[in-house]
Amino acid sequence: MTIKAFVFDAYGTLFDVHSVIDTCNNYFPQKGECISQTWRKKQLEYAFLRQIMGKYDTFFNATKDALHYAVTLHGGNLNKETETALIQSYLQLTPYSEVTDVLAKLEGKSRVIFSNGSHDMLDPLVQYSSLGNLLDQVVSVDDIKQYKPTPASYNYLLGLLGIKREEVLFMSSNGWDIAGAKNFGFHTAWINRHYLPTEQLQLPPDKVYDDLRGILEWI
Amino acid sequence: MTIKAFVFDAYGTLFDVHSVIDTCNNYFPQKGECISQTWRKKQLEYAFLRQIMGKYDTFFNATKDALHYAVTLHGGNLNKETETALIQSYLQLTPYSEVTDVLAKLEGKSRVIFSNGSHDMLDPLVQYSSLGNLLDQVVSVDDIKQYKPTPASYNYLLGLLGIKREEVLFMSSNGWDIAGAKNFGFHTAWINRHYLPTEQLQLPPDKVYDDLRGILEWI
Repeated sequence: MTIKAFVFDAYGTLFDVHSVIDTCNNYFPQKGECISQTWRKKQLEYAFLRQIMGKYDTFFNATKDALHYAVTLHGGNLNKETETALIQSYLQLTPYSEVTDVLAKLEGKSRVIFSNGSHDMLDPLVQYSSLGNLLDQVVSVDDIKQYKPTPASYNYLLGLLGIKREEVLFMSSNGWDIAGAKNFGFHTAWINRHYLPTEQLQLPPDKVYDDLRGILEWI
Repeated sequence: MTIKAFVFDAYGTLFDVHSVIDTCNNYFPQKGECISQTWRKKQLEYAFLRQIMGKYDTFFNATKDALHYAVTLHGGNLNKETETALIQSYLQLTPYSEVTDVLAKLEGKSRVIFSNGSHDMLDPLVQYSSLGNLLDQVVSVDDIKQYKPTPASYNYLLGLLGIKREEVLFMSSNGWDIAGAKNFGFHTAWINRHYLPTEQLQLPPDKVYDDLRGILEWI
């Protein structure tokens, strides 16, 4: 079988969400690591809870709401200026070191980002990273307001790609995203950057790699 | 307005989910606290993810799956005997110290448990705790296979109660559950046992108490 589209999750997969730690430390000394961990955890939780409650709001707003929770939990006070600076740092996340090289080697194949992030956060991120010219499409679930891992979200992407689902290789560092993509019928490669156990959802990934270089064997 | 039904979440609200720590420590010395924390976190995550993916499975199975993940993450090995013992400990969680007294004082009102737990875990738990004769109903989302905080789950409960939604006081220690109940239109009391910040979901609780004794002012 031939893979026609290589589809990447963005946050945690191409971009290191914890590259905000330094900025967090600037405003909340010694608390950067804790704030960043809670920020990410709550960002996902708020997106999922809103999906379940039927109260969609953008991932950008979930990110802002999660930042408020994280700073409060760790004893900080988030004024407008600090919020602006920290949100700005989320639009300038660092891509993992192998990303540019791997995307370049996939030239000729369709290279796509498919993210829960809304375009108001994804587009500045891609632009800042200069990865734009190595990508064919940047697709957001915000177009249909159904977060991953709903089947509807992956189905929306598939419609845009105009290929069969088994012609897609979907890559994510997030176990829940891999489970959702596998549930939908994509080929899946879990980029297990932190050596975590497989999620116990009876939807294991087809392949597991330490970083994105491993996926080049699918060309 | 008169509250006709006092509806309690079970896990974390009436029962201390971390009362499994001692048993965890028996099998995995020094790791009880970590395992218990991950166990609870993943139990909820798996229930939510299954709701989002449209792949419902019982909370009992989510609890087992989460236990496997938690033990693996913290470097343990879960054989069948250990699994059985730890799951058994989840059927014998300790009620918080004020629970019996508060339920007794609500006599004459409808006293209800409404839980994501399936009856195969809820019923043994209630029986073991001897709270059964202080409760009028024990309702599980498993009847309709829609987890809290879906609006459908709270709506199912409301149908069983046969009263108006504003005649319900819903109590939970879980911020996401309070947000869901408020979203549906119940009165809500957040039992904030661990002094956490309010969830940033634009659905704040009507009242916040340190433990369940505070809710007696609603009689």
